[in-house]
Amino acid sequence: MGGDYAPAETVRGALVAQREAGVTPLLVGDEAALRAQLDAEGVEAAPWQIVHVPEAVAMDEHAVEAVRSRRPTSIRKSAEMLGADEVDAVVTMGHTGAAVAAGVLIVGRLPDVERPGLGVLLPAHDPRPLLIDVGANAEARARHLVQFAVMGRVYQERLQGLESPRVGLLSIGEEESKGNSLVHEAAAMLASGGVNYVGHVDPAHIFHNEADVIVCDGFTGNVVIKTAEATAEYAFGELRAEVVKRPLAKLAALGLRPAFRALRRRIDYAEIGATPLLGLKGLLLIGHGRSKAPAVTNALLAADRAVRAKLVPTIASGLESATA
Amino acid sequence: MGGDYAPAETVRGALVAQREAGVTPLLVGDEAALRAQLDAEGVEAAPWQIVHVPEAVAMDEHAVEAVRSRRPTSIRKSAEMLGADEVDAVVTMGHTGAAVAAGVLIVGRLPDVERPGLGVLLPAHDPRPLLIDVGANAEARARHLVQFAVMGRVYQERLQGLESPRVGLLSIGEEESKGNSLVHEAAAMLASGGVNYVGHVDPAHIFHNEADVIVCDGFTGNVVIKTAEATAEYAFGELRAEVVKRPLAKLAALGLRPAFRALRRRIDYAEIGATPLLGLKGLLLIGHGRSKAPAVTNALLAADRAVRAKLVPTIASGLESATA
Repeated sequence: MGGDYAPAETVRGALVAQREAGVTPLLVGDEAALRAQLDAEGVEAAPWQIVHVPEAVAMDEHAVEAVRSRRPTSIRKSAEMLGADEVDAVVTMGHTGAAVAAGVLIVGRLPDVERPGLGVLLPAHDPRPLLIDVGANAEARARHLVQFAVMGRVYQERLQGLESPRVGLLSIGEEESKGNSLVHEAAAMLASGGVNYVGHVDPAHIFHNEADVIVCDGFTGNVVIKTAEATAEYAFGELRAEVVKRPLAKLAALGLRPAFRALRRRIDYAEIGATPLLGLKGLLLIGHGRSKAPAVTNALLAADRAVRAKLVPTIASGLESATA
Repeated sequence: MGGDYAPAETVRGALVAQREAGVTPLLVGDEAALRAQLDAEGVEAAPWQIVHVPEAVAMDEHAVEAVRSRRPTSIRKSAEMLGADEVDAVVTMGHTGAAVAAGVLIVGRLPDVERPGLGVLLPAHDPRPLLIDVGANAEARARHLVQFAVMGRVYQERLQGLESPRVGLLSIGEEESKGNSLVHEAAAMLASGGVNYVGHVDPAHIFHNEADVIVCDGFTGNVVIKTAEATAEYAFGELRAEVVKRPLAKLAALGLRPAFRALRRRIDYAEIGATPLLGLKGLLLIGHGRSKAPAVTNALLAADRAVRAKLVPTIASGLESATA
């Protein structure tokens, strides 16, 4: 039920994931609304399992309070089923804060994790680098960044097949002397082992293939992904404005459409679908609130791949050996 | 002598500023190199004042050490002349950290300023919003953010003629509950007076005209401007790559050139030239290391405008009344 286009687009995306990839989605939310949407899509509702939870967390609610209140919401019920092993994974396009709170409070953290981290694959070179944390926590200590590094390493090993992924630390400037006190402390800890640490990554170089995992605190990571998205939207919006002023350019732009479409596919978050909250005892994936059906489909496929890759148990043993 | 294209481009930019706007530049650096460049431009060296300082701070030097060592460098000499009122302003395209250190240690801070702040005008709507601090300090306390807000307000009043500029606080999420502890503390202080505080500005909305001054710590501000620059470069680079794959698109791209050029002019840092380090007793402007002649010219014009607008004395009295 979460996200800007639920339930229409979430249901549509789930249908495609089931038909084309054999994923078995289970819908959690208002049963009448979900059945109506399945009917509208011309689908026999019978083979679809729906768990009726009429309420959802609203986007303007306080996340932790919404979860702590024990009010039955779709994210709470989903997290409970994940915690009880009734489902292999949960995918949500809803309130990120509520999903993180439900993950921590209901699914629970792995033994060696103090803070779960939300990572996103940046739309850069292949293999795409994982930026973690992008906002599960507004604040972090150096040892949390080290935990993000270990979890990110396992993610890149299991899901992108990388051997000894390079771990970088986001900082302003490549030199070791640059950065704030959190960066300096984390750099010392990262250099002392457990991961293949390659030093600072300057934000100017995040698309330059300097690292496979880039760690940072969640405030900074959230600033990075939102600034990148805002800049791309602004730049292409301004370009469009310049084009429509010029009749010849308008005509020429038609010839560029395939190139623009290819670029959009490359940098669109819908291609990734959703990203797991790393460090929980179960697999919880969080997608963009603006996800439409293709993003929902890709999110379910990402969940399926992560289940098959045994992401969570591998992270658990990775953390165990890193902290041993 | 600073920046990637010195002295050729810096001298060329200075020549245009003198010829077309009546600014009187004084060149600080290696006299032989500067004279040779003036000769190459076919300029009578006589009317140009050159202050001979053979050494410059290298880009990989430690900023504070380079300045503290008292080694005579072009930025040290420039700051000394500014401190002694022998020049009205200093413009540098060199090592940002060295310029900040020279500003603090040699020119000195205004009485009510603990940390000077480097602001940049974002290439967004008109009037452009000022983002401050973008990296003069890697760390900040809440009261420093309040000082940035007051200085930014005066900047927008004096240089863009805004009445009661809106001051926003960069944070992840619009809601007051979002953000880290620095943000929460600064929000409370900003709301209690001295500036027209309008609340949080999410990085997703930095181009949406929500505020005229956006304050943040220097680590975060540096991440914002570098991420924005990296994203624009990456997106247009990828678009170019998609275009050259397609013969028809290559042809069509010719028709789009004027639109691309107009966009580039709009988002190019060279249009701004340089930005003052606010909070010093003198006017020190810092430009991009990659500045070519047009950026240098615009930097000198920006310095000229700031002198005429009495920016520094107005900031001094603005801070005095805000802290009174």
